[in-house]
Parts: sequence; structure tokens; C-alpha cells
Amino acid sequence: MTDRIVAVDLGGTQVRAALCDREGQILKRAAQPANATEGVAAVFARIVASVREVAGDQLRVRGIGVGAPGPLDPWRGVILQAPNLPGMTDFPMKARLEKELGAPAFVGNDANLAALGEHRHGAGQGVAHMIYMTISTGIGGGIIADNQLYLGWRGFAGEVGHQTLDAYGPRCNCGNVGCLEALAAGPALVRYARDALRGGRDSKLRAQVGLHLDQLTGAMIAQAARAGDGLAREIYERAGFFIGLGMTNLLHNFDTELFVLGGGVAIHAWDLLYPPMLAALDKYAMPSMRHGVRVAPAQLGDDAGLLGAAAWVNEQMINDK
Amino acid sequence: MTDRIVAVDLGGTQVRAALCDREGQILKRAAQPANATEGVAAVFARIVASVREVAGDQLRVRGIGVGAPGPLDPWRGVILQAPNLPGMTDFPMKARLEKELGAPAFVGNDANLAALGEHRHGAGQGVAHMIYMTISTGIGGGIIADNQLYLGWRGFAGEVGHQTLDAYGPRCNCGNVGCLEALAAGPALVRYARDALRGGRDSKLRAQVGLHLDQLTGAMIAQAARAGDGLAREIYERAGFFIGLGMTNLLHNFDTELFVLGGGVAIHAWDLLYPPMLAALDKYAMPSMRHGVRVAPAQLGDDAGLLGAAAWVNEQMINDK
Repeated sequence: MTDRIVAVDLGGTQVRAALCDREGQILKRAAQPANATEGVAAVFARIVASVREVAGDQLRVRGIGVGAPGPLDPWRGVILQAPNLPGMTDFPMKARLEKELGAPAFVGNDANLAALGEHRHGAGQGVAHMIYMTISTGIGGGIIADNQLYLGWRGFAGEVGHQTLDAYGPRCNCGNVGCLEALAAGPALVRYARDALRGGRDSKLRAQVGLHLDQLTGAMIAQAARAGDGLAREIYERAGFFIGLGMTNLLHNFDTELFVLGGGVAIHAWDLLYPPMLAALDKYAMPSMRHGVRVAPAQLGDDAGLLGAAAWVNEQMINDK
Repeated sequence: MTDRIVAVDLGGTQVRAALCDREGQILKRAAQPANATEGVAAVFARIVASVREVAGDQLRVRGIGVGAPGPLDPWRGVILQAPNLPGMTDFPMKARLEKELGAPAFVGNDANLAALGEHRHGAGQGVAHMIYMTISTGIGGGIIADNQLYLGWRGFAGEVGHQTLDAYGPRCNCGNVGCLEALAAGPALVRYARDALRGGRDSKLRAQVGLHLDQLTGAMIAQAARAGDGLAREIYERAGFFIGLGMTNLLHNFDTELFVLGGGVAIHAWDLLYPPMLAALDKYAMPSMRHGVRVAPAQLGDDAGLLGAAAWVNEQMINDK
């Protein structure tokens, strides 16, 4: 029997698929726009087409793994609700894929599977306890405990971006108040810069965007910070501070050995974020718990979720036996 | 072979011991002052004497379980550092007890073992995922995941009181900033009342303590709150709000099914704390994660730690086989 697995990353804008082997090598890739507004049937058809594109029509694969956003049931493989995929509510992805493609299918939360990917094939190899955080438009993550993905009661665990760090802070998209995501994800950094510029704050960023504050991006702020701009530096120092506080909370709750940080904001501004986040962890974590804990950048980039989905298939199939 | 177990609760002020059966019944008890200032050897002698007092000199028991404060290694049974027990640093409690008493001994964090006790014999029976929080002079806890005590990398997990909820809030004893413990444990409530009275705030509490603000207690504040005093009500509402936010963070990270709250503050002021903490959980938790989650008072009082220590012995001995 083949040991090939098809991994699918179902995003709000793109459907990506990859043919993977057991060692975490990607042998073939496919990507197409999700065109989510066309509805659930169209998105599902695109997933099926992507799988066939990398695996061939014969589809001689061990199984199919799908990473999807939002709350989902990782045991039954049902997507309960998918932000950015209108209508994908209580969608039995596992059953539908198995029926359509005749191969075993498994579904997991995208950030959870990225955590698994980094653990099995990336920055987390060799440690038993790891927490992955992805910092980009939002902040998600996954917990590895005793080498396994920690799922919790219904499989929703690891929403590390939605912990309150500032009870009097801004409301988060999730409804919670002062969440890490509302304080340190990409949009929060841009919003902070915009508010400061609107308030008359002096910065190199003003010359760059003029009156078009809506054109401000995280990359511009990072560039300005590296050029020594005070406002831009403050923004990354503040974000790093909150990420470090978030890691401290997670450390105190989970007693992990390693934090792996991925996502566009973390990876592209690692030089700016690492010093303040490490300073916060050093200052605020209990010394006995801080001792020996490492913080590392993710290694797999956008492939973390795909490789995690493939690992998830392999390991669920062993568990099912 | 007997199925009796001796459980010991090693506190900063008291050493308590209990002879337990497998069903969680306490058959005999002993307690003596810890007199911690007399040093480690004296405290250890008192533990041994307490064990003999409940188990008899023949000591026909299956094993001995000890709950102790502070960071400890629950696998090796070494107390790394015990606040309130001067000199008890890197103390090999398990090895010392086994040598002295000739019976298998196991050691766990006191709040972790109380969580285990409530899960096996108290409010958490029948659920696979539970988080226990004890709210008294400090805030500690324990995580039950898939029916097991979640220990983490080094056995330090479950420090639920030491999560930052207010990044700009008061410094905590642990060194962290704006921790749940610094905002909602007993001393935080008294401090808040004292500061308000000192600031000239009107309250029934003023008539009670006059100029002797140091005589203010949590019980007084609770009584005043029940009598409708505005300041006192505000204090419990604020504490409940922060406890609810803390539960929200834990829910988002662990996806638990049940919160069990114990400790003097939670139990004696349940009527005052429950409405605001539930309101915060309802308002701030993601609806998909909030759904079906219950919050209940602890059932075992001071016996939770003893019964948890006994359960710990039974289950570790099975694991060791």
C-alpha cells in the first residue's frame, strides 16, 4: 500500500493541496482561489479537484488530511462554522470527502495542524511539550503535550490568541476584551500606527503615506522601525511585550518547553519582536518555570499546516486501528 | 494487601494527615502545627509522626501521598522550593519517606492534588475535562485533561492564578504583572477596600473598622456587600469579573467542560462571586466554546487535597507496574 497522503489547507482565499510522503516531503502541489462567495458546493468541488490534481484520478493514497479554520469537530471531521467560508456550517467534510474520493479523510483546525507540522517536521522536533503561535492577520495556535496535539473537550483547545491580557483594552473580533490578537496581530499594529498619526504623532510613516492612512501596512511599520523611527519601534516593542505576556500566561498554565512562533508578522519582524517578547518572558514568568524554556521561529512557513495535516492522517489511522 | 492509603497535606502552618480508603472515605485524621521556622528536619519529623498517628506504628498501608506547595517534581517526588517552609529546597520527600517508613510514597502539588480529589470524589466526577481553581490567600489550581492530571513538561502546569489579565495592573507576588491572583484573591479584595476607604470613599465598612483599616477582612466585606454596601458590592463584582475573565482564558486555551471553584473566598462568597463571574464568562467567551460549559463550587472543602493525594498514590502505583 502506498504511504502517500494528500494534505489540503482550506483557507478563506485559497485552497491548497499537497502530495506528501511520510518523511514530510512535499512531492507535488496545487493551489486555486477558494472563491468562497460561490458557496459551499463550489468550494467542496474545488477541494476535490485539488486533491485529484496532486494525487491523480486513480487517487492511490493512504488518506486525505484537511486543515480548516474555525471551530470544528476533529474526531467526526465536521466543520461547525468557518469564518470566511459563508455557509460552511455543520459541514461533514470527512464523510463527504470519503464518499466522493473513496479514501479515509481526517479534518483538523488549521492552526492546530500547523502546530503538529512544526512539531513533527519543523522547529519542534525532539521536544515533548511545545506551544505553537501563528501571528498574522489573527493569532492562532496549537498545543503539543506529551508529543500529542492537545484537543480538549470538543477539539477546540489552543485558541492562544484569545486570551485577555488587558481587561480594559480593545474589544476583539471574537467578542472577548483585550485579547492578545486584538493587541498584537497585524491589524492591531496598523491600527495603533494610524491612531497615533491621526492624533498628530510625529513619524517617518507620515511622509510615506501622507493623508492615505488606509495604505499603511505592517511591512512599512517594520521598515520604519528598522530605520529608527520612534513610533514604529514603539509599536513593535508593544506587540513584543504583549506576545511575551501571552507566552508567560501559557507557560504558567501549560508548563511547556518550547514556544514556536510562525505567521507573517512573527517571521517578517522577528528581529523587532524577539527582544521585547523575550524581555517580557524573562521579567514576568516565574523563575522556576522560565528556566530552560526556549523560543524559536517556525521553520516550515506555509507548509506547516500541510505537513501537519499529513501527519494527522498518519497518526489518526494508527489510532483507529 | 491493604488498600489503605495515608494522605498528607503539607501546608505552611499545618501538617494534616488522613487514613483513606479507595472509595475516598477518610477513616482517621491527624493535624499538628507545621512550626516551619524550626527547620526542615523538624517539619519532616512531624510528617512522619502524623503518618504514624493515623496509620499506626505497623504502618500496613498501600502507600503514602503528600501534597506540598510550590514547584516540585511530581515524578521524582522532590520538593524544589516551598514557600512558607524555609529551607525546604531540593528536598527528596519521596525518597526520605520511603526510607523512613518503608512504604511507597508519592508527592504532588497541593492545588493539583486538590483538583484530582474533586475530580475523583467531588464536583468533577464523570467529566473528562475539568479545571479546578482555589481562591483564598492565593489562587492555584489544577487541570484535568482526558481524566488525567495535566502536569506539563516538568510537572509545574496549572498555575491558573498567575495569568496576566491586566497588563497595566498591580504586580503579583510571583513577579508577574496584573495576575488573576493579584486582582481577585483575598488579599487583593481587602487591599482594594482599604485603598478606597483611605481615599475617602463612603462605605458601611468605615463604621466597622474606624481608623483600624488593618483589621478589615474579606468576611467583613462580604457581609457588607450582602447588606447592600456599594463599595463592598463593587469589590466582589470586580473580583467575579476577573475570575470570569480568567476562566474565559482557560476555556479558550484548554477547552474544558467544567470549572470547579474552591478555596475560602470562592466558597464563602459564592453568592456574591457567581453572578458576575458567570456574566463575564457569558459575555467574553466565544459562543462555540462557552456552550455547555459548567461552573460549580467545590464539594470537598479542605479534604480535596487529602483525597487527591490518596488517588494520586493509587494511580501512580498502577502506572508504575
